[in-house]
Amino acid sequence: MNLSTETVKDYLIDLQARLCQQFASEDGQADFIIDPWQRAEGGGGCSRVICNGAVFEKGGVNFSHVMGECLPAAATQQRPELAGCPFEAMGVSVVMHPLNPYVPTSHMNVRLFCAKKSTTEQVWWFGGGYDLTPYYGFDEDCQHWHKTAKKACGPFGKNLYEQYKQQCDDYFYLKHRQEPRGIGGLFFDDVNDGGFDRCFQLLCSIGDSYSEAYLPLVQRRKQLAYTDQQRQFQLFRRGRYVEFNLLYDRGTLFGLQSGGRTESILMSLPPLVRWDYDYTPPAGSEEAKLYQHYLKPQTWLST
Amino acid sequence: MNLSTETVKDYLIDLQARLCQQFASEDGQADFIIDPWQRAEGGGGCSRVICNGAVFEKGGVNFSHVMGECLPAAATQQRPELAGCPFEAMGVSVVMHPLNPYVPTSHMNVRLFCAKKSTTEQVWWFGGGYDLTPYYGFDEDCQHWHKTAKKACGPFGKNLYEQYKQQCDDYFYLKHRQEPRGIGGLFFDDVNDGGFDRCFQLLCSIGDSYSEAYLPLVQRRKQLAYTDQQRQFQLFRRGRYVEFNLLYDRGTLFGLQSGGRTESILMSLPPLVRWDYDYTPPAGSEEAKLYQHYLKPQTWLST
Repeated sequence: MNLSTETVKDYLIDLQARLCQQFASEDGQADFIIDPWQRAEGGGGCSRVICNGAVFEKGGVNFSHVMGECLPAAATQQRPELAGCPFEAMGVSVVMHPLNPYVPTSHMNVRLFCAKKSTTEQVWWFGGGYDLTPYYGFDEDCQHWHKTAKKACGPFGKNLYEQYKQQCDDYFYLKHRQEPRGIGGLFFDDVNDGGFDRCFQLLCSIGDSYSEAYLPLVQRRKQLAYTDQQRQFQLFRRGRYVEFNLLYDRGTLFGLQSGGRTESILMSLPPLVRWDYDYTPPAGSEEAKLYQHYLKPQTWLST
Repeated sequence: MNLSTETVKDYLIDLQARLCQQFASEDGQADFIIDPWQRAEGGGGCSRVICNGAVFEKGGVNFSHVMGECLPAAATQQRPELAGCPFEAMGVSVVMHPLNPYVPTSHMNVRLFCAKKSTTEQVWWFGGGYDLTPYYGFDEDCQHWHKTAKKACGPFGKNLYEQYKQQCDDYFYLKHRQEPRGIGGLFFDDVNDGGFDRCFQLLCSIGDSYSEAYLPLVQRRKQLAYTDQQRQFQLFRRGRYVEFNLLYDRGTLFGLQSGGRTESILMSLPPLVRWDYDYTPPAGSEEAKLYQHYLKPQTWLST
């Protein structure tokens, strides 16, 4: 690629390192293992995984840079005509599953795709975002999360946050449950308006703001005492995370379709999960409040 | 429908009752709850679910009879032209997840589909089969399972077992893991050769033989002592079951696509599951033997 893709790659590798350093420091007990891998068709990546931490039961911060002769359909929503073209993709993906049910699970992804439409025509686009999945919600945490997301989008266009928030609500939705995955955040794809440099700056702003959005929530909630019943509710709700990722998530399906490294793709799955037949929390319980209040798309920020 | 579908329905409802009675009796501690449901578009079903048994940690024996104006694509492999036609489907689906890692998980399904190609032309076909997913294998159990399957197919055609066994190996395969789900069994679809009655008899023979194939293995292994490490390996391997059902299983996808009852469809998911990053069992261990010996498609019966 002739674009400044090396600059993007440097940014992504640095972002990965910074996030791992911050999460390991927050955890205080476990550290990330570093697992580099190569891909037969071209490219590779480096997975960093934390397990059995004091704060993070399981988490992954993956960098990958892959290329191939045939772009999978899952890679682009708005440009189906590019499916089958030679492509190059790079990104950082994060999923953190905390041990304490009061600490929400979070997910972040930033990515760059380039595809060759013909020998002379190359197209590129950025995508990514972040979303939050609480088990026990706190309004002030949702507000902090969305406020940080909005601030990151601020310099790049009026209503950009509102647009990306709406896209996030639309994307992280479990149709078969008629249920959002969590309280949303940002989701963007096929972004290439205003030139490469400007779009890259937007990507950096969102990538950099993720830990600023998430870590304060971890710090606030990680010491809260919880019961075994609350822990079991967390395991139960993690089932929805598995269902979303395996049934709907384009990143997961893109990875598996493009012959990606299965263990790195599925690091997003929670460490321990339960499925109970037809469980509904008792009316008026904290667990019922998750469904009635937090799992309803809403304006988290007062204007 | 003008075919003897009432006879099939009676058989399915009776099969469901017999299986629940046998499993509950084998369990000795828990019993099945009975959960009837209706479907907005037409039809309904009755789920029977056992939880926290002495033998079965979770299990479901579901009957359903649904109809609709638009056959989902996942319903037929060989007749894609029927997708979108008015249809009727009935069947019994079973998944049993035992507590003891020495007892294998088993799955069985028998079903009848009818679709209206035009106002005058109606097509029907039977499908189903059963497959076994051990955590710790025993050759004699695999042989008993396949011997019973072969006996059930015997009266209906030379090499029918071999054909259905091959189809089972092909179907229950996790491409992203390059791994079979278990040691196979029978899988058939689009069966309508030789007339309705003969095909229905084949369905009955296979449906009736399932408990004969499975219960002796439960009886042999349910009292074996196991360690926590073996239990954890079972939870880990159950992750593959989840991956298969959500990524590939046509029954699951058909159910979710056709607006089926989510809780009944996903009763197949195990009660407790773990995902460990990049786990490989130590060479020479019993766990490694599962991969090296049992998860290799093979001829289980000497000729």
